[in-house]
Amino acid sequence: MIPFRFHNPVNVVFGRGAAANVGQEAVQYGRKALLVYGQASLKQSGLYDRLVLSLQQAGVAVVPFGNVQANPLLSHARQGIALAKAEGCDLVVAAGGGSVLDTAKGIAGGAGCDIDPWDVLSKGTPFTTALPLVTVLTVPAAGSEMNCGFVLTDDVASGIKGGGFGGSPVFPKVSILDPETTLSVPPGYMTYACADVMSHLLEKYFTASSTWTPVQDRLIEGLVLAAMECLAAIHADPDALSPREAFMWNATLAWNGLPPCGLGGSTPAHLIEHGLSAVFPRIAHGEGLALIQPTWLRWFAMRSPARPARFARAVFGVDVACDTLAGVEGARRYLDFLARFGGPRDWSGCGVAEADLAAVARSASQLAQVWGMADAYPEPLILEILKMALSANLKPAPVDAS
Amino acid sequence: MIPFRFHNPVNVVFGRGAAANVGQEAVQYGRKALLVYGQASLKQSGLYDRLVLSLQQAGVAVVPFGNVQANPLLSHARQGIALAKAEGCDLVVAAGGGSVLDTAKGIAGGAGCDIDPWDVLSKGTPFTTALPLVTVLTVPAAGSEMNCGFVLTDDVASGIKGGGFGGSPVFPKVSILDPETTLSVPPGYMTYACADVMSHLLEKYFTASSTWTPVQDRLIEGLVLAAMECLAAIHADPDALSPREAFMWNATLAWNGLPPCGLGGSTPAHLIEHGLSAVFPRIAHGEGLALIQPTWLRWFAMRSPARPARFARAVFGVDVACDTLAGVEGARRYLDFLARFGGPRDWSGCGVAEADLAAVARSASQLAQVWGMADAYPEPLILEILKMALSANLKPAPVDAS
Repeated sequence: MIPFRFHNPVNVVFGRGAAANVGQEAVQYGRKALLVYGQASLKQSGLYDRLVLSLQQAGVAVVPFGNVQANPLLSHARQGIALAKAEGCDLVVAAGGGSVLDTAKGIAGGAGCDIDPWDVLSKGTPFTTALPLVTVLTVPAAGSEMNCGFVLTDDVASGIKGGGFGGSPVFPKVSILDPETTLSVPPGYMTYACADVMSHLLEKYFTASSTWTPVQDRLIEGLVLAAMECLAAIHADPDALSPREAFMWNATLAWNGLPPCGLGGSTPAHLIEHGLSAVFPRIAHGEGLALIQPTWLRWFAMRSPARPARFARAVFGVDVACDTLAGVEGARRYLDFLARFGGPRDWSGCGVAEADLAAVARSASQLAQVWGMADAYPEPLILEILKMALSANLKPAPVDAS
Repeated sequence: MIPFRFHNPVNVVFGRGAAANVGQEAVQYGRKALLVYGQASLKQSGLYDRLVLSLQQAGVAVVPFGNVQANPLLSHARQGIALAKAEGCDLVVAAGGGSVLDTAKGIAGGAGCDIDPWDVLSKGTPFTTALPLVTVLTVPAAGSEMNCGFVLTDDVASGIKGGGFGGSPVFPKVSILDPETTLSVPPGYMTYACADVMSHLLEKYFTASSTWTPVQDRLIEGLVLAAMECLAAIHADPDALSPREAFMWNATLAWNGLPPCGLGGSTPAHLIEHGLSAVFPRIAHGEGLALIQPTWLRWFAMRSPARPARFARAVFGVDVACDTLAGVEGARRYLDFLARFGGPRDWSGCGVAEADLAAVARSASQLAQVWGMADAYPEPLILEILKMALSANLKPAPVDAS
């Protein structure tokens, strides 16, 4: 195992109806909250009003800051920082999915210590202090509710989508996970969420530099199988709460730093996807991962087959003796699994042409510098994998008899 | 899922050789440490001297407090509290296994806030503050390094072995997990450790009150299988570090509060075992669990077969359609697995007679009051299960063909 430090101080409050208690949690950390949220859906569902009521009843004044978009923008986070400072907020409350929580981390850090979020993401400088952050998660996927990472696109200058860790100060103090808030997420979007969760669990599993890691391997395989079981149950009955609930907890566990402890490894599909959705912000992060991860896995299985083969056997029951063939078959089943629930079987529907891929590769390779992955994933290699994904998946996959 | 709160702020530092850095970690929390340890083995291995050197070089003065015994005593913890106060210690450093860490929690809390550890364990009153605690784990089993629980036997008055949670103040600030320190633990003792780890993982899995919990189920099944894989590897090569290393992390994960989140459930085998080792302190906790858990499981499978059957199929590949028969077979394989690595196949070697069981049941039933389990496990039922364990396991189990 690779030496590691694991320290995750987030206080997770999980349960049906828990969102209504946001005020009691928040008032322990501040009296004037910048309430960060996204689009109109939070208001349409009535959740926005319930949160404001709970905060106000607990004695927490609310300064609303909405309009966070998917693939959130640096310029918007900076507006939030300015507003939090101007209003004298001593607390940030985030209500939404990963984009909202990530924006809120940028604001909490930027308003708390005068370090700009882009310095954190482009130079790896962590925030030294931050306004306390309380989150209410409504879209389970990114895992932002139980880590100190965040992703923003620099729409001001470089156009790069940057992702990184903001340091201990931007761990949420409290994250409220109320599965009832997720019932409005369409099943098709849950497939993208599942692609994100599976990628979070599997990237370092595939690329681990440790050799004998049965604990992490079985833990990760178990969580991957559970995520798949949940997704199937959500599609079977989108109104049932239990599958939503289980998936929500699975998504949090997938990217809270614990599953890959000791593995080493890196996150190449996330790297390439951030390039894709930086250039094409209309592509959701999970959709982008569904477009990239299976192809990356097939490419990787042909070079380093042991881990992909283990995955194929443990998760999909692939019964093939040759590691390379097993790994490639695992990649095919990965794609097929997501496609069965509305994920993209190929790139034909995403509106990306081969001529666009150079810009995607360039954006990803800039992030690779920050992530220390530039040697393993130089720009030409990223472009090669992208071309493989764009073209190879256009061939219809064989019918899955499993 | 049952609503839950998960908050575990322990900073885990994991890696080969990490123990040598105890001083750098400890000096962030205090300048005069009560160094709690157990028997002579820590000194014989040279680890004691290395820890003292590291602490002193970092500027942390050391007040030694040794002689913690297995199944540690309240009177001894109180001596430690008095010494820490008399010496003006502002920090507790614990170096050893679960007994040492548990004693150190009692001392850290008792010296920090004038609440007696026995009030915590007998009345459920948590410590309000505590001296900061830094631990160096040398025996992976109890999981004390990443939780706020502790176990002490009241040798002053009641004779009861009490276990409970001390509250947030006694979470270790830092726990150093250095697998090299565990190489001296004999393989036979690692079997007891594995019995403890499996029980930690499985008690609430078996007794869960939630119905659809694929995330927790697969996570727990994965960790159980990994623990078993590690134990077999440790017995195959006791000097190999990788299996020790993986087992160490597995043991920590097993009882850090995360795997059973949302399950509900209770810990009946631990309840009964604490009664057993209160009356017979020579019986190690893990040995006692190996004597009790399989019989409890067989008893439980005949009353509530669904979860035991799932366990039998997922962990041992039992291929029996009837849940009750599958669950009973799972209990048999559980016993056989531990026995294959030196665990007790029956009670013949532990020196406990049927006439002793009433005292054991009485002790356990007193703890059941504190744990809120008295309705589900009244004293006559505990006695019945104990008698079943003492007698039934004497019958040789069929040869395991798996």
